[in-house]
Amino acid sequence: MKQADIVVIGGSAAGVPAAITARRHYPDKSILLVRKEEQVLIPCGIPYIFGTVGKPENNLIPDGGLINNKIDILVDEVTSLDPAGKSITTASGEKIVYDKLILATGSEPLVPPIPGINKGNVFAIQKDIEYLRHLLTSIDGTKDLVVLGCGFIGVEFADECKKNRDINVTIVEMLNQCLQIAFGESVCKCCQEIEDALKKRGINIVTEAKLEEVLGSDKVTGVKLSDGRVIKADALIVGIGVKPNIALATASGLEADPGFGIKVDSNQRTSDPDIFAVGDCASKFSFFTGKPSKLWLASIATYEARIAGANLFNTRRKNQGVIGVFSTAIDGLTVGMAGMSAKGAKDCGFDVAVGEAEAPNRHPDGMPGMAKMWVRLNFNKSNGEVVGGAICGGTSAGEVINIISACIQKKMTADDIATFQIGTHPAVTASPIAYQLVNAAEMALKEMR
Amino acid sequence: MKQADIVVIGGSAAGVPAAITARRHYPDKSILLVRKEEQVLIPCGIPYIFGTVGKPENNLIPDGGLINNKIDILVDEVTSLDPAGKSITTASGEKIVYDKLILATGSEPLVPPIPGINKGNVFAIQKDIEYLRHLLTSIDGTKDLVVLGCGFIGVEFADECKKNRDINVTIVEMLNQCLQIAFGESVCKCCQEIEDALKKRGINIVTEAKLEEVLGSDKVTGVKLSDGRVIKADALIVGIGVKPNIALATASGLEADPGFGIKVDSNQRTSDPDIFAVGDCASKFSFFTGKPSKLWLASIATYEARIAGANLFNTRRKNQGVIGVFSTAIDGLTVGMAGMSAKGAKDCGFDVAVGEAEAPNRHPDGMPGMAKMWVRLNFNKSNGEVVGGAICGGTSAGEVINIISACIQKKMTADDIATFQIGTHPAVTASPIAYQLVNAAEMALKEMR
Repeated sequence: MKQADIVVIGGSAAGVPAAITARRHYPDKSILLVRKEEQVLIPCGIPYIFGTVGKPENNLIPDGGLINNKIDILVDEVTSLDPAGKSITTASGEKIVYDKLILATGSEPLVPPIPGINKGNVFAIQKDIEYLRHLLTSIDGTKDLVVLGCGFIGVEFADECKKNRDINVTIVEMLNQCLQIAFGESVCKCCQEIEDALKKRGINIVTEAKLEEVLGSDKVTGVKLSDGRVIKADALIVGIGVKPNIALATASGLEADPGFGIKVDSNQRTSDPDIFAVGDCASKFSFFTGKPSKLWLASIATYEARIAGANLFNTRRKNQGVIGVFSTAIDGLTVGMAGMSAKGAKDCGFDVAVGEAEAPNRHPDGMPGMAKMWVRLNFNKSNGEVVGGAICGGTSAGEVINIISACIQKKMTADDIATFQIGTHPAVTASPIAYQLVNAAEMALKEMR
Repeated sequence: MKQADIVVIGGSAAGVPAAITARRHYPDKSILLVRKEEQVLIPCGIPYIFGTVGKPENNLIPDGGLINNKIDILVDEVTSLDPAGKSITTASGEKIVYDKLILATGSEPLVPPIPGINKGNVFAIQKDIEYLRHLLTSIDGTKDLVVLGCGFIGVEFADECKKNRDINVTIVEMLNQCLQIAFGESVCKCCQEIEDALKKRGINIVTEAKLEEVLGSDKVTGVKLSDGRVIKADALIVGIGVKPNIALATASGLEADPGFGIKVDSNQRTSDPDIFAVGDCASKFSFFTGKPSKLWLASIATYEARIAGANLFNTRRKNQGVIGVFSTAIDGLTVGMAGMSAKGAKDCGFDVAVGEAEAPNRHPDGMPGMAKMWVRLNFNKSNGEVVGGAICGGTSAGEVINIISACIQKKMTADDIATFQIGTHPAVTASPIAYQLVNAAEMALKEMR
């Protein structure tokens, strides 16, 4: 029998920062992280294994952060949890007693109940190194790849699989545009720009299409759409979302919902006061409405981990609700989103004012690396506070969306943002006169006065 | 005699956004912008004329923003101001009556009273297209260039003049490192990295050196330092700072100080209630201490312009005091600073906690464009609020420093920043586990608990 003051189950974007945060806040406690993988993949980096970085071994979370923080690592699968006895049992028969436990068991891919979905060469993305090695070999032998779903996973997998391969890639999407769910608008500049970039790369995009059947005998040979169209395919990647891993929690009597995850309060505490849950496996609520949220992102996992890790023995931090901040990039074109879309905010009953601004991200625009950057901000008219934003531009857009996140978090008004104290430089930002964030706020004010 | 409801004097980083903001907030007013230049240079872009963008014509503020906003432009020099009569007179004899006036008369370069400073080929940087054309020709004919002062102007001019030219460039600096005043530390990673980058480019840097005399008969042939050393030079660029242009204001009886500028209140109003002043010509105070400030930056000019432009007929916005946010870049290496340095804060009586974090700005680190990004945050221990930060990294550091500015502006605590809701992506940011801003805050908390 082992014992540790703090046990963390899971070694990815939730478990690692939970353990490290626990170390920072409780320097004298013993901490054990239990994970089933020998090596852990960077979850967001998985699509890049198939093109840019080349193999799973180039996309690993290094163990240095854990080791340097004196966190013990046990590679084993946790098979049961006994909240009353404050212990867990592993596949190898080890019993481990804890004082505080953090569940960071993650999520697994959704697989739609379509006829033929279990045929060979149909892949839903498991975060497992062996699985991905096999998938990589399969893609290398593929001539016609179909990707189901044009969310982030779909966009990134399609683009990466196309790189350095003579291969036909077709994305099949139910909605009328790429990334529609993420950006939450029926007409969306960011979605359109990404769609155009993918098409320019030679990727076929079939929207407003429902997959009805996976064709083939043992292995996939094609997919049939509900309108009767058939698309040739010798491999199918399914990227339509995830569901929380709650089996361990529910088996031990913790409250959980299959759709929303293990129930936690705003301190990340489950229905057992000594057990916390963070990341994809844990329930979430919206920063804006307080309602349950299905935003599963690695960055949200780290946010919750930094709350739980600090709260284990003293309640120090509170989850304010998830904002949802994300970005993706195709060939230098970067799009991002934070908080609510204008449509999403209206659907929640907000009276919304929108402001947009576009300008080069260098000044003068002859400076190297120049790209146009477009920013949209969505404000709640009733109090003037920013509730969301979207961005489309060059690489630095990936950090500008984080400025917008800061504005949302601190409930900045349009006037606050219009008088935001920016730093600018010819080689790295827009000019201070044209700075997009500030001007988008000014444009929204026109609707608000 | 002309008349306009709103008259703006000056057409650069202060005047242009002041006029545009006035238009946005007062759509029915007539607005006239009077400037002495036919074409206006982007002030921060001036060093890049000498290398990257090649000529003054490639570094102009376009007039489109003014024209599209129905702002009249008059190219003429304002020679007198009569606050009692609410009118100005120009060099060409035009008298213009205003209802509200915004002074955006800028600054001019400081020239140190050194023997020989008036010799030929000694240049202090005038924001004037003809002057810069002449300077460009001179630099093209130069073999040995000395740059006096290693602030932003000195760093950028030295680097740009060296580009595509077979020329010896030597920077002479009084302090012991480049950019020392800007970064406000006696030992400074950002300063050192920039200094190393300049040296790698083949630029000579002579620190702790005082210029005693400019040598030569009519034209400069060298400079003599106070320790007796002589450096050969056929051109000398002086980049040691600026002073506010207050002549027009003082001649008309407005309150002003030669060191700090035209006196304004937190609404940007001068001692005359119908006259506002913004930008380098206007007085400033610190966000942190409320004390007078000598931070002259184009981004601060636009900040003040957006306050004054909104306040002309109704008091809508208030200057919170200047934070000071800036960045520069050499060959992709970007450094930035926001707010107070740790030393600066201590000198002002703050009890300071510092946190630092470094990580690749991509994840995994094999993603293209990867550079290490280092962040330092300075907190006021008494209330936990962030009062400053510095950054050193790739191009996106230029926007990350603006996230830090948002944190400072909204007085975020170390706990707030440690649980900042970031968006991350392999191709454009650090991993969410390693995100520098969040981890720097966590490191500072160690000192604060």
